[in-house]
Amino acid sequence: MTKIILDAMGGDNAPEEIVKGAVAALQAEKELKVVLTGDEGKISAVLAGLTYDKARLEVVNCSEVITNDDVPTAAIRQKKDSSLVVALKMLKEDDDAKGFVSAGSTGAVLTGALLRVGRIRGISRPAVCPALPTAQEGKVYIIDAGANAECKPVNLCHFAIMGTAYARAFGVKEPRVGLVTNGTEDHKGDPLHQEAHELLKTLPGIRFVGNVEGRDIMSGDIDVAVCDGFSGNIALKTTEGTAAAVMKIIKKYISSSFMAKLGYALFMRPTFKKIKKVMDYNKYGGAVLLGIDKVVVKSHGSSKADSICASLLQAKEAADNNIIGSIKEMLAGVDLEAIGASES
Amino acid sequence: MTKIILDAMGGDNAPEEIVKGAVAALQAEKELKVVLTGDEGKISAVLAGLTYDKARLEVVNCSEVITNDDVPTAAIRQKKDSSLVVALKMLKEDDDAKGFVSAGSTGAVLTGALLRVGRIRGISRPAVCPALPTAQEGKVYIIDAGANAECKPVNLCHFAIMGTAYARAFGVKEPRVGLVTNGTEDHKGDPLHQEAHELLKTLPGIRFVGNVEGRDIMSGDIDVAVCDGFSGNIALKTTEGTAAAVMKIIKKYISSSFMAKLGYALFMRPTFKKIKKVMDYNKYGGAVLLGIDKVVVKSHGSSKADSICASLLQAKEAADNNIIGSIKEMLAGVDLEAIGASES
Repeated sequence: MTKIILDAMGGDNAPEEIVKGAVAALQAEKELKVVLTGDEGKISAVLAGLTYDKARLEVVNCSEVITNDDVPTAAIRQKKDSSLVVALKMLKEDDDAKGFVSAGSTGAVLTGALLRVGRIRGISRPAVCPALPTAQEGKVYIIDAGANAECKPVNLCHFAIMGTAYARAFGVKEPRVGLVTNGTEDHKGDPLHQEAHELLKTLPGIRFVGNVEGRDIMSGDIDVAVCDGFSGNIALKTTEGTAAAVMKIIKKYISSSFMAKLGYALFMRPTFKKIKKVMDYNKYGGAVLLGIDKVVVKSHGSSKADSICASLLQAKEAADNNIIGSIKEMLAGVDLEAIGASES
Repeated sequence: MTKIILDAMGGDNAPEEIVKGAVAALQAEKELKVVLTGDEGKISAVLAGLTYDKARLEVVNCSEVITNDDVPTAAIRQKKDSSLVVALKMLKEDDDAKGFVSAGSTGAVLTGALLRVGRIRGISRPAVCPALPTAQEGKVYIIDAGANAECKPVNLCHFAIMGTAYARAFGVKEPRVGLVTNGTEDHKGDPLHQEAHELLKTLPGIRFVGNVEGRDIMSGDIDVAVCDGFSGNIALKTTEGTAAAVMKIIKKYISSSFMAKLGYALFMRPTFKKIKKVMDYNKYGGAVLLGIDKVVVKSHGSSKADSICASLLQAKEAADNNIIGSIKEMLAGVDLEAIGASES
């Protein structure tokens, strides 16, 4: 049995969709236990209409909520009885609690995880690591997708290590790691990426395939895309914007042609729905926060039940595959100082 | 009549597709004159099979070619009789020559334009500015999409000015300028973008709409996306990779469903061809190099005749709309030093 804590009050559709997502996950996975933190009255009202295994769902009442309007650091310090802070305290203190999911404010989840759970020893900068579909069958993990606007070369080495461990935990045997820069040649990029490139070349345990460009991220030719958090965030959100624009342009063209419109209505609507689902990475699972000493999954703020369900299953799988242990093991196996990667 | 010089030997499909593109452009636009630089024998062999207005096409013979394997700076200095260097010399010296198009090496075109034509006074860093389709009707101009891996805040101000002038030249009345960062809040980004944000807020003549994210680039809500050349290059190539991945995923899903396959074959094939054309920004026109004292358009290395034709028409339109004069005028109207943006 794997116990995952869920912030019932985080996100645009809390608590209703969050609670429904928990119930869906319990149905999908018999070895999952969920602890909901939040307003017990509101949570119970949603639960009242649902059928679920009561032995595997626990509610911990909290009186406060951290919103997007709160300043993260202050909110984590002051709102001690918020669903987020209570959840993170439990995550830290309860050895049985293996992971945490929230659709709340990214800043608050990141800050809270840092302050209340703490980093993995040796990792100075935890990073956000979402998965995207690729043009081939698999997925690609982007790390860092936005936790750190400013990075040092050593941080990018940590991202490569954590991304590799995470991709392995999800079944990729020897993850191919690319460094996202403005060209594939070895010398491309600014000094940060030039230095990171040299370090990654010599980093043991990493299958570094060299510099890659934005166009390679979703090609299926790499499994882990290492980025500084600034350009990684731009890359991630550009994939989102482009996919949305492409779908809109397709719809516009389809509706401008009578034949295409007919073909769409008669034959293609279900296929397009499936495609939309695949493209919309937000809706199907969350972005894991790597470098924290427990599994933390940030689900999109607009998450509905199916997304929360996916995030819970993802957190369980990461915990079951001992992702934290794997990162620690990989870190123990490399002497970053020896290859010239240091914090200073 | 507008005279545009075309490097007949640059690109993967030179000279055949380049020459055919020139002929297509002459047919499409009666007020265009094209000067081809390159191997006269090879060019004439292609021209022999084509019908065109001989009075509007001139060939200047050159004995050398600069390839992707050449080191740009050395090649520009040494290969004095190359199609690129001869073209740029003519562009600089001939007042009637209003623009230049090449599908050759980006590095060589950029270096050559800097060394042989020179910058607009006041612009320290010329920038690459391609156009992308948006989810709405229009286009968005990304500047800088890769000429400068490292930038200063003042460079980003210049990009905003040049992008605004360019969008205006192509019919956008009051171009909305966004600064691409890792979040929409004013304080987002690294120090470079934070400082650039403050400068752009006060820059006269610019309709600055604030920070935007990667997802906003193609939304149609902005006309000019200002980027440092590093993350701009990643954003541009990510749109390319994502569009390609989306189309592949769509094809995969269509072919996995009998009904969808039938619908595609019967009704939708022409629509999808049209969509592919719109999405493939490479194939339809090139990226203008702004900040050089004449119009320079870099067509994609894999350009075929239709793309060369589009690039020629684009160069003509930019020249006819006096883009260089507009940039100079805008620069004269702002005192960048006064708002704290300086080169030092």
